[in-house]
Amino acid sequence: MKLSVTLVLFLCHNIWSYDYETKYFEVLLDHFSFTNNATFKLKYLINDTFWTNDGPIFFYTGNEGTVENFAENTGFMFDIAPSFNALVVFAEHRYYGESLPFGNDSFVSPSHIGYLTSSQALADFVDLINYLQTMSLEKVPVIAFGGSYGGMLASWLRMKYPASVVGAIAASAPIWQFETPCEDFYKVVTRVYQEAVAKDCPLLITKSWTALRNISESPEGKAWLSDAWQLCSPLETSADVETLIGWYSEILVNMAMVNYPYSTSFLAPLPPFPVKTFCSQLTQANIVDDKSLVMALGDALQIYTNFTETTTCNKINQTAEALGEEGWYFQACTEMIMPMCSIDGDMFENDPWDYGKYASQCFEKWGVNQTHPELPVLEYGGKEIKAASNIVFSNGLLDPWSSGGVLKNVSESVVSVIIPDGAHHIDLRGGNKDDPETVIEARQFHVDNIKKWIMEFYFHSGKGAFFEKIKYQHVARN
Amino acid sequence: MKLSVTLVLFLCHNIWSYDYETKYFEVLLDHFSFTNNATFKLKYLINDTFWTNDGPIFFYTGNEGTVENFAENTGFMFDIAPSFNALVVFAEHRYYGESLPFGNDSFVSPSHIGYLTSSQALADFVDLINYLQTMSLEKVPVIAFGGSYGGMLASWLRMKYPASVVGAIAASAPIWQFETPCEDFYKVVTRVYQEAVAKDCPLLITKSWTALRNISESPEGKAWLSDAWQLCSPLETSADVETLIGWYSEILVNMAMVNYPYSTSFLAPLPPFPVKTFCSQLTQANIVDDKSLVMALGDALQIYTNFTETTTCNKINQTAEALGEEGWYFQACTEMIMPMCSIDGDMFENDPWDYGKYASQCFEKWGVNQTHPELPVLEYGGKEIKAASNIVFSNGLLDPWSSGGVLKNVSESVVSVIIPDGAHHIDLRGGNKDDPETVIEARQFHVDNIKKWIMEFYFHSGKGAFFEKIKYQHVARN
Repeated sequence: MKLSVTLVLFLCHNIWSYDYETKYFEVLLDHFSFTNNATFKLKYLINDTFWTNDGPIFFYTGNEGTVENFAENTGFMFDIAPSFNALVVFAEHRYYGESLPFGNDSFVSPSHIGYLTSSQALADFVDLINYLQTMSLEKVPVIAFGGSYGGMLASWLRMKYPASVVGAIAASAPIWQFETPCEDFYKVVTRVYQEAVAKDCPLLITKSWTALRNISESPEGKAWLSDAWQLCSPLETSADVETLIGWYSEILVNMAMVNYPYSTSFLAPLPPFPVKTFCSQLTQANIVDDKSLVMALGDALQIYTNFTETTTCNKINQTAEALGEEGWYFQACTEMIMPMCSIDGDMFENDPWDYGKYASQCFEKWGVNQTHPELPVLEYGGKEIKAASNIVFSNGLLDPWSSGGVLKNVSESVVSVIIPDGAHHIDLRGGNKDDPETVIEARQFHVDNIKKWIMEFYFHSGKGAFFEKIKYQHVARN
Repeated sequence: MKLSVTLVLFLCHNIWSYDYETKYFEVLLDHFSFTNNATFKLKYLINDTFWTNDGPIFFYTGNEGTVENFAENTGFMFDIAPSFNALVVFAEHRYYGESLPFGNDSFVSPSHIGYLTSSQALADFVDLINYLQTMSLEKVPVIAFGGSYGGMLASWLRMKYPASVVGAIAASAPIWQFETPCEDFYKVVTRVYQEAVAKDCPLLITKSWTALRNISESPEGKAWLSDAWQLCSPLETSADVETLIGWYSEILVNMAMVNYPYSTSFLAPLPPFPVKTFCSQLTQANIVDDKSLVMALGDALQIYTNFTETTTCNKINQTAEALGEEGWYFQACTEMIMPMCSIDGDMFENDPWDYGKYASQCFEKWGVNQTHPELPVLEYGGKEIKAASNIVFSNGLLDPWSSGGVLKNVSESVVSVIIPDGAHHIDLRGGNKDDPETVIEARQFHVDNIKKWIMEFYFHSGKGAFFEKIKYQHVARN
């Protein structure tokens, strides 16, 4: 059973290409009790190049990773900031990047890591927004942006704190994953591989699990496989084999998530349409038995593991080493419990959802008993969000996380935009000449909604003149 | 400076006249961190006499006191439950009544009392509602009710957890008191006394402060005053005099709050229109100097202190002894910081608002530094609540707390109902033959809104048939 599927991984570090200043803001460790007064520094990135001091604030609600990664992969905010005269801010999520409440000790015990919850993160953002408002003479409208878990946070920020943000662009935000049938996620992944080239591709993957298990049964097989897949540490135990299976499975998922139409370096340096490239290579290989299948897979996986041709060997426990993942592992064990399973009909090895086993693994790792797995649904309302307002949920149908996304309009102002051929929050990325028309349309939809929310803000605050100015500017500029 | 004005006091214990079972529900001590798994038992009262298992739940969000007191003084819920086939529930607020997380130690240190926050209380209610829902086969609509701080909680419950409650009746809920000019509260109290009989009454009260101070300067004066006002412990120090002034001032406020048109025992056993009775007696007295004024006041105060003619002497530190007040004192020091002051123009002794002094008194008492006094405004949005829905705010204009109330419609479904001659949440009380027409109209307004919310609930859940049944029943019964 997969313990948790990481929403976003950051294994590679880009050279940053957007401009911003790095700043820090002191936040309370615990916003919801008065048992202590501890504080820590939350990192945020800020760019005021386009800001006119009375323009809106574009606020990215950081998710599970170093905030620079989100800034670098959310070019959309920079692209549209000039036409809105907007201040651009990316806030780091507590317990990720540099925003560690207890420094290196942040993960050592429940009394340290226990404050890693979405509610506390939202309260951090509210306080930071309140501080940013002091940069203007009068209150300005704030738009929340976020992708993946960051998109969940953006939508929840609007739901819980509508006085702080006038609206939210929630891209690929699986807020309903808690209640989605556990098999849906891997079904979508399978569909991505089915539609990439031909059905042969997922069929070969389906066969690969048995092949891998057969081969890795014997010590010789383990040695052969370690060599064939260029592992840094040879497989020795059956636990190593499980790690390998998990690593391989995660790469298949990740390639679907970042199956963008142009070369990116979001999760790993990748060619355009990596799934298509992977499947083309795999289906063209001469496969006659388990070994030739596994060998062909190993070669094809290099599209993900070694696109830059600089990787000398594969670290199959790589993901577990990255600090950001420790935090997400904790969150997946406590609040973000999203049931997932593989069944007959998808291309993955069968793997049932077993909450008891999941919970006991979590307890072993963190010493925390989650006695209220219904917590996120009660806290954020589950599927009953019709009382919310001013949220755009965007989803690519080829994004596995669309299985937990809001795919239909919920109300007049809680609306959905679908990108049929889109991967994981592609709409938040900067414009690219290879963007499909559907992505461009989704971005226009975002811009139209942001305009509407800003106009509403000025209308309600009775600033007719400014409202007219905004209106004019936008019509003229876009 | 008054440290805090208690919203509701319970000095007298009624013989309970409504039927309910007393139950307990286990809740998490801390809903917003995973630092510990501690739980405690929250008390609630439940009456299912009128419930049909698919009827709605009427849920009172308990405030600062033993929950039975709220049940006894919220007869409106019992009055209308039969026509809605409703389950009636009163939930106790954590740290009041029997719902003490650490028993008798609940108030001893920040690490004990620190979990007394409105956010934690709301999360308790959400969990209890979730549990109550399991009593029905299918989800039923829940209506939140509350008066005073309980009304604030009811409205916040709807704002923060709209999936848990379909709407809220928030009676005399001063959710804007945090941002109200500090003098407004005592201005309203003064108006109540002005309109009771004649302007002479507040003028005499205005003079009384100097009279009390003059008399109590000397030891002989203190002795005379102790005797004249029948104090249990004679005044000895200047601190005792301050306590007396505070006690007298609080009675004046309390009489305004419960200035009901019929005899009640909410804060103390009282005649109908206690302020009128008090002012009539005071203005008819033969007042020629400080002593005769103070003597006349002492006599008139017996309307509040000794209406039952069973009080042998007055305990002027009475309010500080009641357990419920310890909790409210803490809340007033941490979250519920509502600036209050008396100025020229009201009938009280001048008393400026000094947050620094207030905060240092709070720190001395609780060892807690409130570094974020803006907390409640950020947490609940302050005056920006137009994104909320399905809340009725009712306010009596002769209720001092109306100074912080929502007195105008905010949106189509966040609406205000004014009871011009109403005192503190009179509309939540059971029907009385002496109810003025305005109170009856306010209650009808509540019923109409509750019906609308329930119909919306069934409409959205696609249960047309049930929706029709509800509609028919209500039209027929009301």
